[in-house]
Amino acid sequence: MGKSLVYPKRASNTVNRYNHRATYDLGAIHTIINESAVLHVSFSAGPDNPFPATLPMIGQMGSFEYPSADINEPLDCYLHGYVSSRIMNLARANNDGVGGGENKGLPLCISAAHVDGLVLSLTPNSHSYNYRSAILHGYGQLVTDEAEKHYAMKLVTNSVVANRWEHTRVPPNNAEMASTTILRVRIVDGSGKIRDGGVSDDKKDVEDEEVTGRVWTGVVPVYQVLGEPIAAKGNRVEEVPAHVREFVEAVNEKNRGYAIAAAAK
Amino acid sequence: MGKSLVYPKRASNTVNRYNHRATYDLGAIHTIINESAVLHVSFSAGPDNPFPATLPMIGQMGSFEYPSADINEPLDCYLHGYVSSRIMNLARANNDGVGGGENKGLPLCISAAHVDGLVLSLTPNSHSYNYRSAILHGYGQLVTDEAEKHYAMKLVTNSVVANRWEHTRVPPNNAEMASTTILRVRIVDGSGKIRDGGVSDDKKDVEDEEVTGRVWTGVVPVYQVLGEPIAAKGNRVEEVPAHVREFVEAVNEKNRGYAIAAAAK
Repeated sequence: MGKSLVYPKRASNTVNRYNHRATYDLGAIHTIINESAVLHVSFSAGPDNPFPATLPMIGQMGSFEYPSADINEPLDCYLHGYVSSRIMNLARANNDGVGGGENKGLPLCISAAHVDGLVLSLTPNSHSYNYRSAILHGYGQLVTDEAEKHYAMKLVTNSVVANRWEHTRVPPNNAEMASTTILRVRIVDGSGKIRDGGVSDDKKDVEDEEVTGRVWTGVVPVYQVLGEPIAAKGNRVEEVPAHVREFVEAVNEKNRGYAIAAAAK
Repeated sequence: MGKSLVYPKRASNTVNRYNHRATYDLGAIHTIINESAVLHVSFSAGPDNPFPATLPMIGQMGSFEYPSADINEPLDCYLHGYVSSRIMNLARANNDGVGGGENKGLPLCISAAHVDGLVLSLTPNSHSYNYRSAILHGYGQLVTDEAEKHYAMKLVTNSVVANRWEHTRVPPNNAEMASTTILRVRIVDGSGKIRDGGVSDDKKDVEDEEVTGRVWTGVVPVYQVLGEPIAAKGNRVEEVPAHVREFVEAVNEKNRGYAIAAAAK
């Protein structure tokens, strides 16, 4: 392994609580983002609104300039959305120099979290989750180049099911291209937090036989499962194709394996 | 059923895209929040920082004033955190009149999302998720009343595993009470979005036999599973207790059942 790239530590992304669980490693953070079916994308809703806005979106790390870039190299986050949505309109305005982005684009915070286990200990206060979470800060700009948009649409589609793009009716027609908007987020910093392992309790409780004699402690693994594919009424292809079947199997094995291994650490 | 309460529709929480999927129903929104193991909580990181901050937190809807309030009645959102974390410090400052909250507390956006299925259609553009998502806007204030704090700690613990609180060493001691901070979020508005059902494709593709002859369409159900509980090394209770076993079974049945039913709609 070569040296691993890390995001700069700034006030805005430095983890203070349980900082032994923190990571600034690009590879670790990008993997947590890429394995999330949903990203929570937040932005300021304007000077008159005290509440940030948050949208659940589909996204994926990638690089149009260097498509072969590895997961632990600098990457952009491509977010998929609808052309007239508020976030896209704000990004458009920020591209034009309106708003707080200083022309760099719309300032965004992207958040992802996976729960891998319920850590059940002797007292409520020492209860915890095994989890992986990550945030990225960056500036979102609308992708206008057709080739880059095409690249990002394929990237995002294949994150839903690997190789799905190639097994559908492509390329998108003009109406489909026009109705889809892609936001490219140039990342400025990020951080992640990972908790794995078992139960941890205070010495006083561990040595109290009245307590240990009645309170069960352990970890309940938590993982997302892809169930048996259900064919559409209009489907004309007899068998579930290999790219779907293999993806379902691979994801299930990975998710379950991770949660159980995390509990055993 | 009596009439169902809804959140007011404002610019900040009105769903524009696919608005037939939108809900403002308190019961639907509160349920999506309560069934999320992690909430993504966003707040402004201050006037000098263009990026909102987002934290993954554990939270639950409840009412200390009316503990028997139903899920479809007005409720607060109780968020659990560490005493010296940034969000708690900001909430403390906002309680004191500093910051943009006009003394009402720290303005927050709370976001939750569940993916229930991968909807695989003929073209990438008509691919979708079955999902349930919700956001809440509100003002976060630190809970200072001991009885309310106790109420919220129990509420949050029992959201991780039902009845867990009663089966652990309680009540929390003074050090545990002091190290835990609870944020009560007074909700001002909210919205939810629910997508279920099967594949939907454009007529042109559905009528193209070359396409329907080679592209499999259908739904892959997605659901979170609680695995077999793994006892801690220090555990002294022989069997997995009923409150854990029954919770695991009930959650698994509900999650899997929902995802499959959503696909079949």
